[in-house]
Amino acid sequence: MAPVLSVDLNCDMGESYGRYQLGDDKGMMSLITSANIACGFHGGDPTVMAKTVELAKEHGVAVGAHPGYPDLQGFGRRQMGLSSEEISDMVLYQIGALSAFARAAGTQLVHVKPHGSLYNLAAQDIQVANAIAKAVYMVDSNLILVGLAGSELTSAGKAAGLPVANEGFPDRRYLSDGSLMPRVQDGAVIENPEEVAENALHLVFDGIAKGDERLIVDTLCLHGDNPKAVENALHVRAKLESKGVRITRLEQIFTGK
Amino acid sequence: MAPVLSVDLNCDMGESYGRYQLGDDKGMMSLITSANIACGFHGGDPTVMAKTVELAKEHGVAVGAHPGYPDLQGFGRRQMGLSSEEISDMVLYQIGALSAFARAAGTQLVHVKPHGSLYNLAAQDIQVANAIAKAVYMVDSNLILVGLAGSELTSAGKAAGLPVANEGFPDRRYLSDGSLMPRVQDGAVIENPEEVAENALHLVFDGIAKGDERLIVDTLCLHGDNPKAVENALHVRAKLESKGVRITRLEQIFTGK
Amino acid sequence: MAPVLSVDLNCDMGESYGRYQLGDDKGMMSLITSANIACGFHGGDPTVMAKTVELAKEHGVAVGAHPGYPDLQGFGRRQMGLSSEEISDMVLYQIGALSAFARAAGTQLVHVKPHGSLYNLAAQDIQVANAIAKAVYMVDSNLILVGLAGSELTSAGKAAGLPVANEGFPDRRYLSDGSLMPRVQDGAVIENPEEVAENALHLVFDGIAKGDERLIVDTLCLHGDNPKAVENALHVRAKLESKGVRITRLEQIFTGK
Amino acid sequence: MAPVLSVDLNCDMGESYGRYQLGDDKGMMSLITSANIACGFHGGDPTVMAKTVELAKEHGVAVGAHPGYPDLQGFGRRQMGLSSEEISDMVLYQIGALSAFARAAGTQLVHVKPHGSLYNLAAQDIQVANAIAKAVYMVDSNLILVGLAGSELTSAGKAAGLPVANEGFPDRRYLSDGSLMPRVQDGAVIENPEEVAENALHLVFDGIAKGDERLIVDTLCLHGDNPKAVENALHVRAKLESKGVRITRLEQIFTGK
Repeated sequence: MAPVLSVDLNCDMGESYGRYQLGDDKGMMSLITSANIACGFHGGDPTVMAKTVELAKEHGVAVGAHPGYPDLQGFGRRQMGLSSEEISDMVLYQIGALSAFARAAGTQLVHVKPHGSLYNLAAQDIQVANAIAKAVYMVDSNLILVGLAGSELTSAGKAAGLPVANEGFPDRRYLSDGSLMPRVQDGAVIENPEEVAENALHLVFDGIAKGDERLIVDTLCLHGDNPKAVENALHVRAKLESKGVRITRLEQIFTGK
Repeated sequence: MAPVLSVDLNCDMGESYGRYQLGDDKGMMSLITSANIACGFHGGDPTVMAKTVELAKEHGVAVGAHPGYPDLQGFGRRQMGLSSEEISDMVLYQIGALSAFARAAGTQLVHVKPHGSLYNLAAQDIQVANAIAKAVYMVDSNLILVGLAGSELTSAGKAAGLPVANEGFPDRRYLSDGSLMPRVQDGAVIENPEEVAENALHLVFDGIAKGDERLIVDTLCLHGDNPKAVENALHVRAKLESKGVRITRLEQIFTGK
Repeated sequence: MAPVLSVDLNCDMGESYGRYQLGDDKGMMSLITSANIACGFHGGDPTVMAKTVELAKEHGVAVGAHPGYPDLQGFGRRQMGLSSEEISDMVLYQIGALSAFARAAGTQLVHVKPHGSLYNLAAQDIQVANAIAKAVYMVDSNLILVGLAGSELTSAGKAAGLPVANEGFPDRRYLSDGSLMPRVQDGAVIENPEEVAENALHLVFDGIAKGDERLIVDTLCLHGDNPKAVENALHVRAKLESKGVRITRLEQIFTGK
Repeated sequence: MAPVLSVDLNCDMGESYGRYQLGDDKGMMSLITSANIACGFHGGDPTVMAKTVELAKEHGVAVGAHPGYPDLQGFGRRQMGLSSEEISDMVLYQIGALSAFARAAGTQLVHVKPHGSLYNLAAQDIQVANAIAKAVYMVDSNLILVGLAGSELTSAGKAAGLPVANEGFPDRRYLSDGSLMPRVQDGAVIENPEEVAENALHLVFDGIAKGDERLIVDTLCLHGDNPKAVENALHVRAKLESKGVRITRLEQIFTGK
């Protein structure tokens, strides 16, 4: 009998700021197992964070920190030339801030996933990756570090002694070296919900080909900030469940391994 | 035999920001027992926070959070019309952020003292005081809440079930109702180091008269941001020690009681 | 023959920030004659400002500055305890910033209308009102200062030698002293588009009763940030035009007087 | 008879922020002819700007804008990945903001010099240089654009039709291609005041060698943020004046040419 395959579904959450609303957090929260919650640098503010942690807890969704660059105007998507020390310190700061809301809600942080430009840089730059991994480890060595499958960030996390989750993107095509096809290329982004769901299935069953290697995917990223977000998420869930995949939180996947 | 009197000496710390330097943290750290460390809202940034926590730990000084309004330009000294929810959330956020640096340094937060305009408002406005006390309690009910002796903030802290420390200001005169003489009045601020030291002694031995009541002073605030800061602190310490006062961290005072 | 009545229709614009969208600026711009453009403090960023000024120019809409408190998280709606000097300086700053975009687009600023909590405070506090009027006058004494009809702000503007426009709110009820009924009272806000349009007509033809006095209304504020914004604006325009009211920019109203 | 050589002396000014003081603006203002005034992004705030413009005017010093990245924590010295549009817009914004203070003080902007990381990037990246030059031109085509002598920024300024000033750094060594020796190299920064003054003289009389070319230096940068700033400036002035160099504002240099 084939073993049951498991996967976590994560989504960026709590990226509203003051009067500015972003994403359909309420709609998405019932469809995912891990929430990456913005920590007030690229998005989010203390009150948004409090509400988002509460919402995640109500739905039994794992609470994770989603630290980003201190650049609200650029939504953390612009590169910033920070030193390794500055990166470690700002990641520590953001994880700490979110931890307080988790504690106040009677829960605790499960994972950390960097945001935007920081995530992308950490996938390629080992110094940035190490700075992030070090910060996570210093706060709590049980926190799961989520990074692009096969990236410098996951390597740095492992080297630091952290549990590490490989992330896959169902709405993106991959190159044969395991990296994401750049968005500027035709076909890089998959828009059809049915195709996204098929790709999700493929990522869970086959992993990501990186040359001869096969990268196992622990968590799939669902985007919550487009009009079809809920529809896409429903498709992915239905497709995975129809093939017997267990959709569950990261710590349960790791415990089960 | 008379009992040994104890007092904590606290100072606001870590209020530099990026390239902007403020206060003589290195000079003051060896003279105090509790550091109120800014948390990035009215002053301080993640890297300043990391360094300040390390410095406090090296000197055996208690690390406390010093949360303020989100107003760097006004240094947290301007009033802001925040709701109780916004105040709770921003205090939670700041305590959490500093906690991460404490944990990374292998220590933990001992106390929380609000900053500037938030401190002053919390002394008089019970709703603001309750919002702060609630936030502190939700993070960790063992944190000591430091407030103006006899103020709404200390009342709110007690009501919330927190250990509470009464703060006195050696460089300020008090009115007969136990409140601080407003700075605009002549003589409100004591500038002569010798007089400041005498007043410190008076606060420790006699407390603050509030009508017929006598408010015990648990901690004395030393200012670190004027050119005479270190000289003043040396005077206060010498005077207290010459009269047998034990200068020690708040948690030891509370344990001893 | 009765004289033709004229009124300006203004709307707050350019309050988006980075990735955060707010209001239907494109939908509203063809329905108004004056745009109050946010200047980067309570909302707006340089790129949003550039685009909004261009959009206004394309539609022949007067460009005005909409300065607010430096509080993006609170959207300029929270009170802040700034000194008169700080208020003057921040208003000067914001007007100047927007002026550069106007100049780059080959147009110029016509008016200034403070935002949110600053607007409300300036209506009641003559010192704040004077600080704003002084700043506007120092940049350009031809700028039209828009304030609540019959408020301290319009008084301060006149005293400073500025042209002043009385603003009326078609979706709000007024008290007999000419002030707005507080939002907390039942019926303070009018939600039915037809009633809003009727009230607009009433404001233009009868003005606002302030005891025995009658305040002439020069400009009507249309809100652009609710789902019915465009529908409401269409109703107001249709109603005014059906009664022969000329809808035109403030400087033409003033020239015609 | 040899012609009289002229040079402008410029210094970055107004980089304090709220309670945070930086630089000895009062000490330096009497020693320079052009003030590059921070515009609130990397440093400066509206009230600091108002005071600095007034101070410059009192001393007959030319007022110029010193726009930087929106990064107060990094003091505009960290790289940021902004688009050309974002750069143009933020430069426009900052020039406009400062212009209002100039107008309020009864004077006007003379020049624009980008700050920190933006200055350095604009010296090498023609797209960034063009974005800046375009913004300056759109506000006022008479503004003098100050850039590193022989850089992409001065090229872009000329191409845009702006008057352009070549800047030289008396406390820095140059490579044979006319670029600054990187700070990390030994001897890149000259610390001895007498040597700095000699180098200033050399820059004015001989210009900067760029291969076979000789770059004329129109303005010398004096740093105002180190303890020896005033002493260094006095040395430079004395040396230049002893050799008959006329120290004067940029617009007079350009008029005289």
